[in-house]
Amino acid sequence: MLADRAIRPTDPTLALAVQASIDAKTKPPGSLGRIEALALQMALAQNARAPGADPARLFIFAGDHGIVAEGVSAWPQEVTAQMVLNFLAGGAASTVFARTNGVEVTVVDAGVAADLADVPDLMRASIRCGTRNAAAEDALTADEVAQALAFGADLASEAVDGGARVIAIGEMGIGNTSAAALLAHAIAGIELGVLTGPGAGLDARGIDRKLGILARAAARRPGPLAPLDALAAFGGLEIAAMSGALIGAASVGAVVLVDGFIATSAALAALAARPEAKPHCVFAHRSKEPGHRAMLDWLEAEPLIDLDLRLGEGTGALLAQPLLRAACAMLNEMATFESAGVSGKGP
Amino acid sequence: MLADRAIRPTDPTLALAVQASIDAKTKPPGSLGRIEALALQMALAQNARAPGADPARLFIFAGDHGIVAEGVSAWPQEVTAQMVLNFLAGGAASTVFARTNGVEVTVVDAGVAADLADVPDLMRASIRCGTRNAAAEDALTADEVAQALAFGADLASEAVDGGARVIAIGEMGIGNTSAAALLAHAIAGIELGVLTGPGAGLDARGIDRKLGILARAAARRPGPLAPLDALAAFGGLEIAAMSGALIGAASVGAVVLVDGFIATSAALAALAARPEAKPHCVFAHRSKEPGHRAMLDWLEAEPLIDLDLRLGEGTGALLAQPLLRAACAMLNEMATFESAGVSGKGP
Repeated sequence: MLADRAIRPTDPTLALAVQASIDAKTKPPGSLGRIEALALQMALAQNARAPGADPARLFIFAGDHGIVAEGVSAWPQEVTAQMVLNFLAGGAASTVFARTNGVEVTVVDAGVAADLADVPDLMRASIRCGTRNAAAEDALTADEVAQALAFGADLASEAVDGGARVIAIGEMGIGNTSAAALLAHAIAGIELGVLTGPGAGLDARGIDRKLGILARAAARRPGPLAPLDALAAFGGLEIAAMSGALIGAASVGAVVLVDGFIATSAALAALAARPEAKPHCVFAHRSKEPGHRAMLDWLEAEPLIDLDLRLGEGTGALLAQPLLRAACAMLNEMATFESAGVSGKGP
Repeated sequence: MLADRAIRPTDPTLALAVQASIDAKTKPPGSLGRIEALALQMALAQNARAPGADPARLFIFAGDHGIVAEGVSAWPQEVTAQMVLNFLAGGAASTVFARTNGVEVTVVDAGVAADLADVPDLMRASIRCGTRNAAAEDALTADEVAQALAFGADLASEAVDGGARVIAIGEMGIGNTSAAALLAHAIAGIELGVLTGPGAGLDARGIDRKLGILARAAARRPGPLAPLDALAAFGGLEIAAMSGALIGAASVGAVVLVDGFIATSAALAALAARPEAKPHCVFAHRSKEPGHRAMLDWLEAEPLIDLDLRLGEGTGALLAQPLLRAACAMLNEMATFESAGVSGKGP
């Protein structure tokens, strides 16, 4: 998966130097807990003694899913395109949070099942309009997956070339909790019963029905599948584009801020293929979608916040971004015991 | 405790209107989880359909503790005054985070055992320099407690009169985990063994020793004690000032953002006396100091973040503040399904 994009291993000498710098700050060693670990991770990912959280750019990848024809979602497919317009107008939760927290946003049509050709300020992948119905046939061809990966990787690496130091990945797509569940099942072997949840609002009966449909789709291509095969079998275009963006951003030394359930499925596919990108990834939050915990556990990832969010769109990433900013400020701006004339701990 | 400061009950009609407004936003109902609950809480606390998180002001109340003479801390007492200077110079974690997150800071000498009379930009309570040794005698007189409470309440309510909509309370004081533990034990009856932790860095042997000293102090004034009596018995001046600030801020319709272990002990004292202030309180984080969980449970408070912080100074409150800002922005700025032309959920 995007094997041409090399990812630099972290530098152990830099790790020692940054840790020493953190320990010299005016606070009991370790007393800022995970903020200290985050600062160290960001320094190593960016290969910089003074890491930065700004500028940060969120890509919201939108895509539709053929499997919604089976009735896996409580919402009509047209909502995907409507929400793309809402992002661009600044009225969605993600765009409100981005404005509040000073994060730049690029809205991407990675494969929406609607004609958005005339919409200004929208990036377009132009691969196909929505995936095929994964319950009946492969959602994407291998070539379509490769196109989506490369498209995402190019977008992210160009943003980093343009100055971005953190790339956040989020998404919109009616039906995409189904694709995410199928992907995690196929690649990681997590039970579908664990991965199948309410998504944007199914009741218990709807979840049962969704599980039956996903079981039928999964049976069509029994796992374990290689990440590229799983992306082709189950989609979606926005997910493959996020996988690509993760690898593209890591290959140019950015921190990747991963949103919730769907974005984590994209990270799971990317990291199953390219585990060397893992040190670049910060997992923003634990979603209320019940399968998210199992995915995070499989990735050995500990998210920063846990606020019962289940919206997607990058909202969890945007709420976590100020923690990245604070971690960098701690490392870059705090006084040392020596510079501030503060006494050390007793014997 | 500050009975002259009336606290307005929340308005059930406003609650219904705000919840309806949240539910009309372009997202599945409830999908922003605790951010939605936080927006509603802030609206009710501020008695406003459009609550605000800005301007926010952090008070860092500093105070010293006579009980450090017993050897309850790994750090020398002079660090309290040195850190006051570090706050004012902008080099401490709290002041770095405040700058990063756009929060105003007031540094307060609530009772430091040093002469800080000539330090510019420092607010002074001028009650006394440090508390008495609570292992041997009451830390404060009833009059000193009353002065500290009124001082904190005045500071907070004046800040709100000056425009602040969120008052964050944090502290600095070598030895103050001991005072906080004794307070929570005396008022809430939580076991000292649960409440006694490493503070700023004791090892296991130091914690055992600290527990013995705290048990001796607690035996001097067996509980349960009324909040005012507990504050006099065990101090400290910065804790009483925080209790006062909480009630003062609540009485003028501000949201109170409570930092970690010590600030929560101040909230516990304040809310044991004035439970009607509880709807104004947002608990920022769960500290790594082990007794914090028991205090939060007693208060039936669910903190926003949990990042293994154990620094104090308001750092947890400052890291949580962007969540308050996002919650208000969600309520005040998001589009509705109707305004954005987004289809509703299916039948």
